[in-house]
This record gives sequence, structure tokens and C-alpha cells, in this order.
Amino acid sequence: MIAKTPEPPYYAVIFITTLQEGSEEYYLMAKQMIELSKTMPGFLGIESVRTDMGITVCYWKDKESISNWYNNSLHKEAQKMGRNEWFKSLRIRIALVERDYGFEK
Amino acid sequence: MIAKTPEPPYYAVIFITTLQEGSEEYYLMAKQMIELSKTMPGFLGIESVRTDMGITVCYWKDKESISNWYNNSLHKEAQKMGRNEWFKSLRIRIALVERDYGFEK
Repeated sequence: MIAKTPEPPYYAVIFITTLQEGSEEYYLMAKQMIELSKTMPGFLGIESVRTDMGITVCYWKDKESISNWYNNSLHKEAQKMGRNEWFKSLRIRIALVERDYGFEK
Repeated sequence: MIAKTPEPPYYAVIFITTLQEGSEEYYLMAKQMIELSKTMPGFLGIESVRTDMGITVCYWKDKESISNWYNNSLHKEAQKMGRNEWFKSLRIRIALVERDYGFEK
């Protein structure tokens, strides 16, 4: 569940969304996009939780990997649907992970 | 719900946790810690969602603000309880937000 990321530095894309009512179709597309992102070069891991708000954090090797994923044609189509149909609000933050730590019992 | 952060650069602390069973007391402490963090210098905002996993992203002006919050005595106590009692797994990532964008309808 918690992404097994390598030693920093690496990039995080923090993706915060709220949905319009009647956006059930979104869940199918989100699942497809997660599966697709896993096949992209530079993908390092993903964590995602949704209740009334969704937070997805996706980890990438570098900015080039993020740019490449952003420009993927199926992803572009999903972005357009998201903006026009599904999302009530969206905030994407691109951040350089400098340090991480933790544990697993 | 989505944090109203200023123009980048600023810092994000990405806090991913899974809980041990019987950690109901955690929710009260988590709520207290969110309220306390809001009173700390350099606090910029917070987003938090939990189902079987919790993702909380807390935004700070700079690394000094994060260090100051980390060393707060009540927060230190909560960290100790978290590590010893509540968390099954934990990963904290400290990241410099370089860019953000989005919309609200």
C-alpha cells in the first residue's frame, strides 16, 4: 500500500481532487490511468485514497518522466474528461522529495 | 478542503500511515495535532484523507518551520504514541513544491 520508493531525490506529483456529482465513470478511468502510469518509464510508485476528497501521490524518477506521462495521449484524453466532466476542483503540485523515513511493523 | 497555498516554492510533508487495530484513540490525537499545527509559524495548509490508509499532506513555508513543528513537545509526544501504539506502517516524505496549478468550478 505504501509505495516502495528508492532513496531520494525523486519527484512527487500530489494530485488533489473533488468530484462533480454523477462522476461514477471517473473511477474506471482513474483505475485505467493508474495501470497505465505503472507502465511508463521513470514510474516509482503510487498512493491513493478517496472519500469526499481524493489524494493521489505518484512518484517519478525525474521531471522528464512526469512530462512524458503528462503528454501520453490516453492520459491527455483523461485530463480533458477530468477537467470538463468529472472534477469539481483540482490542484496538482509537483515536488522534489529531498528526504524520507518511516517504518513497517 | 483543498489547501489555499501561496505561490511556490514551499514545502510539503507527505505523511502516509496505516493503523494497528484498536487505534481509535489516534483519531482524537490526529485532530488535536491538525489544530495545533495550524497555530505554528510557517504553516500554510493541510489536506487529509483516510480509509484503510491515511494520506495527509501538510504545507510549510520552509524547512525551519517543519523542524520547529517536528520538535514541538506535544507533537513529540504524539510521534512517540504513533510509533509505539497506533501505526502499523508509516512513511514521511519531505518535498520542495516547485510548481502547482489547478482550478475550482
